[in-house]
Amino acid sequence: MKEEIEELWREVRDLSLGNSGRVERLESPPSPVQFLRDFITPNKPCIISNAITHWPALSSWPHPSYLSETLSDATVSLHLTPTGAADALAPLRSSLCFASASVRRLPFPQALRLIAASNPPNMVAYAQQQNDCFRSEYSSLAADCDPHLPWASEAVGSDPEAVNLWIGNRHSRTSFHKDHYENLYAVVTGEKHFLFLPPTDVHRLYIRQYPAATYTYSEDTGEFGLELEKPTRYVPWCSVDPYPSPETLDDEMAKYPLYFDGPRPFECTVKAGEVLYLPSMWFHHVRQSADDGGLTIAVNYWYDMQFDVKYAYFNFLQSIQYRSTPSPMIHDKLSEETDSGPDDYDS
Amino acid sequence: MKEEIEELWREVRDLSLGNSGRVERLESPPSPVQFLRDFITPNKPCIISNAITHWPALSSWPHPSYLSETLSDATVSLHLTPTGAADALAPLRSSLCFASASVRRLPFPQALRLIAASNPPNMVAYAQQQNDCFRSEYSSLAADCDPHLPWASEAVGSDPEAVNLWIGNRHSRTSFHKDHYENLYAVVTGEKHFLFLPPTDVHRLYIRQYPAATYTYSEDTGEFGLELEKPTRYVPWCSVDPYPSPETLDDEMAKYPLYFDGPRPFECTVKAGEVLYLPSMWFHHVRQSADDGGLTIAVNYWYDMQFDVKYAYFNFLQSIQYRSTPSPMIHDKLSEETDSGPDDYDS
Repeated sequence: MKEEIEELWREVRDLSLGNSGRVERLESPPSPVQFLRDFITPNKPCIISNAITHWPALSSWPHPSYLSETLSDATVSLHLTPTGAADALAPLRSSLCFASASVRRLPFPQALRLIAASNPPNMVAYAQQQNDCFRSEYSSLAADCDPHLPWASEAVGSDPEAVNLWIGNRHSRTSFHKDHYENLYAVVTGEKHFLFLPPTDVHRLYIRQYPAATYTYSEDTGEFGLELEKPTRYVPWCSVDPYPSPETLDDEMAKYPLYFDGPRPFECTVKAGEVLYLPSMWFHHVRQSADDGGLTIAVNYWYDMQFDVKYAYFNFLQSIQYRSTPSPMIHDKLSEETDSGPDDYDS
Repeated sequence: MKEEIEELWREVRDLSLGNSGRVERLESPPSPVQFLRDFITPNKPCIISNAITHWPALSSWPHPSYLSETLSDATVSLHLTPTGAADALAPLRSSLCFASASVRRLPFPQALRLIAASNPPNMVAYAQQQNDCFRSEYSSLAADCDPHLPWASEAVGSDPEAVNLWIGNRHSRTSFHKDHYENLYAVVTGEKHFLFLPPTDVHRLYIRQYPAATYTYSEDTGEFGLELEKPTRYVPWCSVDPYPSPETLDDEMAKYPLYFDGPRPFECTVKAGEVLYLPSMWFHHVRQSADDGGLTIAVNYWYDMQFDVKYAYFNFLQSIQYRSTPSPMIHDKLSEETDSGPDDYDS
């Protein structure tokens, strides 16, 4: 099956995505029809300039004092990790687990100070509660942004399912994963650096089952622990770290050749004032640069995706082993964390 | 690979197409965004009422005298076959070939009389030249229809690549095949009866290589011959006849179990005044009923399709054998007739 799958990686680039690894740029928001036809339908990312230049947030949010005053009464969820890698693989007892952050509820001004000041290897704080938080915890900021992106809402045919706020520093990063949403990602201050692979490249990420664990954080000692969930719960997660340390590079490249030797990932930087369209089901890895105040802030709109023939084809592709031996039936579940997918379907 | 492919057939129906075998109906033309979002993007057929009710053709074309007078000076291409099955498999020397019609250039009034009067097993005449004929041979009829369907053109982002006129009788039929176009099919008089299978069902049609042949017709004897092209040219074509004769039914069902035993095809009748959206790459089989004058007349608009991830996935699927033995690389070519695809990729 190797040749057929590799031909698919090539063909989707030759036909539709391009081979440059660059993401298309639009100088103004597309019409709803153009956005549907040229990006949502072909499941193709783009970066849009001049779509949010009228947002008051662009001028006011880079001032931490504005945020702290506006949200002086708010209590928010803060994600704490030792290094900035939340929802990522972490070593545990000579193996790897899927580690989630320690989540604290804190007054916003205190949370913001922690985010700006936190550093690895001690602690990195990231406000990244993905539960429609911009319309709940952060509702005092509503007037600073648009409640939706009208051209996107008309294209999709509905308002966003969730609007999230992301406040982090330059150490926060997100490991390769995919979401079951059409994602419009608006950067307000700082920069976001994305790596992408299309859904057709699923085998290149070596999705495997990892036991779920959660960080614990002691304010007294300032130290983290990492505890496996009980009963054990397995999470299918991408094994590839695209930026391994120099010491582990050779080892990682040998373990994950389909990633490191295959077509290079799409790569882009989204600057303050720009909006990224991140298509549903695309695998993405995110790093960020901070503004002068040490912060990176973004708002993202999750719109419902269509579970249509593309999704059925993706599940079919994922059910097939890269090498031609009989494969188990594997199915992409909407809630991955409850998926009981393959232990290893690349071998 | 059997289970994975059959799961794909099921899932695309469960998620998107429905399991009833019925084609969705709209009571008025959709907006461009709705047409893109709900039908083109998910690659899903629909029938649209009240989209062409303003066409003068609906009242004038059912009168053969109107057509003959308007086209009194036109010379048109007429396709002649013994039974009405043009571009279809036909027996030849104890095997099967891919038989094309004998094409004659005739004055329109004479062609129209032949169409209305012709009968199997002697001869069936069908005006079905698919070369943008409505805008060339039949340009005198231009004022009777719209030059394009505005909501479809705006959705696709361009005018039609071709507009074709189809004038036949109740004996004309078209065997299972697919087109690399988004197809809007407007019936003006009579009825068209379609069977559809989505592209994901490609293995169920047993596409195999058949030698190309062309009918010859002698006006003197009134008899047809069937001659193989020289040098031999192979055409990949669907092997399944969905309406076998009672004598061959058992044999056909035994030869093509994936078709006869799998999910039943989508089925619909498109009446005069209705427009069918037939999505790109869907396999379709067409029969027709005539109006009181013995004619079935339709105009179809072929819009360019997007060769995007769906198309790449289709090629991937087609490259995989239904049974798990190593498969050759097979690729859908835009011009199928020059394809040198598999001799048999279901076994």
